[in-house]
Amino acid sequence: MFYKAMRLVGNLSTVERLRNLAQRSNYAKTIMTTSCCKIQEEVSKLLALKAQLGSEDAAPSKFVLKTPKGTRDYNPQQMTIRNNVLQKIITVFKRHGAECIDTPVFELKEVLTGKYGEDSKLIYDLKDQGGEILSLRYDLTVPLARYLAMNKINNLKRYHIAKVYRRDNPAMTRGRYREFYQCDFDIAGQYDLMVPDAECLLVVTEILNSLDIGKYVLKVNHRRLLDGMFETCGVPADKFRSTCSTVDKLDKSPWEEVRTEMINEKGVTPEAADRIGEYVRLNGSSELADKLLQDEKLSKNKSAVEGLEGIKLLLHYCELYGIKDKILFDLSLARGLDYYTGVIYEAVLTQPIKIGNEDQTVGSIAGGGRYDNLVGMFDSKNKQVPCVGVSIGVERIFSVLEAKLAAGDISVRTSDIDVYVASAQKNFLEERMKICAELWNAGIKTEQSYKKNPKMLNQLQHCEENGIPLAVILGESELKRGLVKIRNITTRQEDEIPRDNLVEELKSRIEVLDIKEMNGPIRK
Amino acid sequence: MFYKAMRLVGNLSTVERLRNLAQRSNYAKTIMTTSCCKIQEEVSKLLALKAQLGSEDAAPSKFVLKTPKGTRDYNPQQMTIRNNVLQKIITVFKRHGAECIDTPVFELKEVLTGKYGEDSKLIYDLKDQGGEILSLRYDLTVPLARYLAMNKINNLKRYHIAKVYRRDNPAMTRGRYREFYQCDFDIAGQYDLMVPDAECLLVVTEILNSLDIGKYVLKVNHRRLLDGMFETCGVPADKFRSTCSTVDKLDKSPWEEVRTEMINEKGVTPEAADRIGEYVRLNGSSELADKLLQDEKLSKNKSAVEGLEGIKLLLHYCELYGIKDKILFDLSLARGLDYYTGVIYEAVLTQPIKIGNEDQTVGSIAGGGRYDNLVGMFDSKNKQVPCVGVSIGVERIFSVLEAKLAAGDISVRTSDIDVYVASAQKNFLEERMKICAELWNAGIKTEQSYKKNPKMLNQLQHCEENGIPLAVILGESELKRGLVKIRNITTRQEDEIPRDNLVEELKSRIEVLDIKEMNGPIRK
Repeated sequence: MFYKAMRLVGNLSTVERLRNLAQRSNYAKTIMTTSCCKIQEEVSKLLALKAQLGSEDAAPSKFVLKTPKGTRDYNPQQMTIRNNVLQKIITVFKRHGAECIDTPVFELKEVLTGKYGEDSKLIYDLKDQGGEILSLRYDLTVPLARYLAMNKINNLKRYHIAKVYRRDNPAMTRGRYREFYQCDFDIAGQYDLMVPDAECLLVVTEILNSLDIGKYVLKVNHRRLLDGMFETCGVPADKFRSTCSTVDKLDKSPWEEVRTEMINEKGVTPEAADRIGEYVRLNGSSELADKLLQDEKLSKNKSAVEGLEGIKLLLHYCELYGIKDKILFDLSLARGLDYYTGVIYEAVLTQPIKIGNEDQTVGSIAGGGRYDNLVGMFDSKNKQVPCVGVSIGVERIFSVLEAKLAAGDISVRTSDIDVYVASAQKNFLEERMKICAELWNAGIKTEQSYKKNPKMLNQLQHCEENGIPLAVILGESELKRGLVKIRNITTRQEDEIPRDNLVEELKSRIEVLDIKEMNGPIRK
Repeated sequence: MFYKAMRLVGNLSTVERLRNLAQRSNYAKTIMTTSCCKIQEEVSKLLALKAQLGSEDAAPSKFVLKTPKGTRDYNPQQMTIRNNVLQKIITVFKRHGAECIDTPVFELKEVLTGKYGEDSKLIYDLKDQGGEILSLRYDLTVPLARYLAMNKINNLKRYHIAKVYRRDNPAMTRGRYREFYQCDFDIAGQYDLMVPDAECLLVVTEILNSLDIGKYVLKVNHRRLLDGMFETCGVPADKFRSTCSTVDKLDKSPWEEVRTEMINEKGVTPEAADRIGEYVRLNGSSELADKLLQDEKLSKNKSAVEGLEGIKLLLHYCELYGIKDKILFDLSLARGLDYYTGVIYEAVLTQPIKIGNEDQTVGSIAGGGRYDNLVGMFDSKNKQVPCVGVSIGVERIFSVLEAKLAAGDISVRTSDIDVYVASAQKNFLEERMKICAELWNAGIKTEQSYKKNPKMLNQLQHCEENGIPLAVILGESELKRGLVKIRNITTRQEDEIPRDNLVEELKSRIEVLDIKEMNGPIRK
């Protein structure tokens, strides 16, 4: 009986899925209107049934206690790592004058429609519960474009750090989730060529330097150059974007495979593919740009020349910014997303990261580029706001640091407590409370046991386990003499000091504390 | 034709809604199985249709550019306010040793089922796209309980700041949204009576003091006392919770209305209602608790005595914590949520807030209580982890501050930039870039125009509009002499200093800057 009902539910769900299809096609409308009557009959029966049912509660059922597929909780250690990384990134963003914005976690579905090409199938939709049709945001770039167009903003340098959602096949050990953070920095506005673009590259280098996760290179290329290159190689214009997607696979696949895909799947001729093959193996510095500007074919292609001149200017600005040695002009860099229109870039770690005794390859850790036409897609008059931006791949950074934590390579402190108020004797809860109140009032990060008569050993153990450096220890005989003890948890040294000097004494001891740091200061 | 199709869609949506009902009832299963065949016929037709349709794309249509109902973007000013408020709250949470956790924005639907009573209808569901059935989180308390049970954690003092989702009727001017922040602090663990509970109250006072948004009172009551009171007044046990919900309306409605609802809707006798009416008008301090412990009826009721003894102990601890004058024992406080089992509390602003020339009443601004049975609902062996916690109503605080901003009562600075690098002359972009790189390298928050040859007036205007205090001004004649000018934007004073001393000079000037603050320091 249950299974039959479930099959029915399955069918109804199919009906639901077909609804969208039906809406779109006139043919569907015709067919569905004729079959409408029969369905309506059934619906009437079910409605009558509903009236009889009343508001019965769902029966409790066994289920596996878990987070949804591809998601996870962050425990206090993971949150500490995450907050430390984000704090460093925000410091760089702010140093460059970026303002912070936030947008809702969901958008009208129409806002996302037609922006992500094939990947649109990965968008999470909300159930139609009556009202607007909504989807969870897929990235932070489309919401930014929607925000700029909706508020008619022509200039903005903003950062946005928030979670985005993709119904992808998660590979969680490598930091790929269905719910994950993006950390975006974008400059919107009509400015002079390559000036904001170069600053985006500088921002990436400042962030990667401050995170200190190893050597990296910043690959750059230009969509106009790619277009010109495809054109001179004999790829028809309508195949530029799909050929571009294939070139994008060169960081993971050898040229031979990419060539085969171009010919067999993208309809590029073998001759064209071979010509492309000669270009995409090139990489270098501005000398390479100069050389290509002399290239017999490219030099005659307007688009290619525009791209090459752009790259030259960008590299020149990078030199002024002192980051020339980090940049590699690489003709194989293509980037997946359709909306890029100018410079594109990607930061790649050039060394595997040592985790415990194993080396782990991380690869791409930041990426971005210029997209001058996206905002116009939301403007009724198609008014453009040129944009360039970068997204930091923080999830990969988190997972590297979490792996290091698990391997014991680093440690983190999940609470900031400086002082623990303890007592060896019974009935000291009230005395402890008074001292705690005094310390909290003085802004000292303080903790005590929530038990009336905790054991001394447990209290000291709590300090050790949580890296709390100091304990105030109350005893009857000391208090009678107007004294309390301060214990240094690491050295185990105890000093008696006057009760009245406690706050002052603790503050000066906290000042000079040397607390273990995780990949930079944990404590502010 | 279109409207007919839409009607059909409406019907299918009804079918979808009936699905849940059908699943629950055996009767429904029987009926639906018999009518299953006909629907299946239609489904087959539609499936055939689907095959013909292929993967046609949605036609582009005009739509209103907006955020979903009940949600909003945060612009840089709003984000600055929000981040300042959250930073102050986090400082207090950390001072008490709370660790930070985070959970996914959605949960398996079953996790939320049966936790929110009537309000369950406000939960956002995700569309069934194949796979798990998910819902957006409704609060942070149920995800915490799920987290504790899933990870078998018996002790945790955590804070969690994140957005939650409710399909409510938004009242956005009063800070009520469908997507909004919660700021929760909870202490989980088996501890001695009222010790963690009192700390939660202290945390609320520290936060409200640090936010400095006016006078407030912290009302406290106890669910066991309410239960005992209802019992002695003659309310049957199965009506305790619903009577409690009615009492909860006393902060908005007069007693007469509440009395009528009790009698007409909740089935309480007029005599019982009148007896309740006498109790709920009482409020005071621990003297009131003492008096009620002598009350002829309450003193004989185990539950009431337990509640009163609890309140007495709590008030005693509050005295030790120095917050006695902020606490009001109030028998009319009931709190809406079902899951509270012990002490309950609510912070209320006692004065309207002046915004421009108008007074605005804000009311409740924080609330919470003890819930000892929630974690057990997720444990297969029903193992309990007692919890007490508080949620800060930050959206109300945000909207008060935003209204003050709009009225010109406060101002905010949305970027942290200290130095703007400007030039009056043409062709100084490269010189500016070199100076910027030097300042960024030195950690100085620096900005420049992204234009090659910006006008001096525009550059200085940018500084004034964005509260940037200092400008470095480059000129040909000064540079030839190895000098640059530093301009104080407010005083307009300009000083020539050696180019080589620039970083040092700027750092010492930034050190002594006095920048306008919004409700406490904007700058760290």
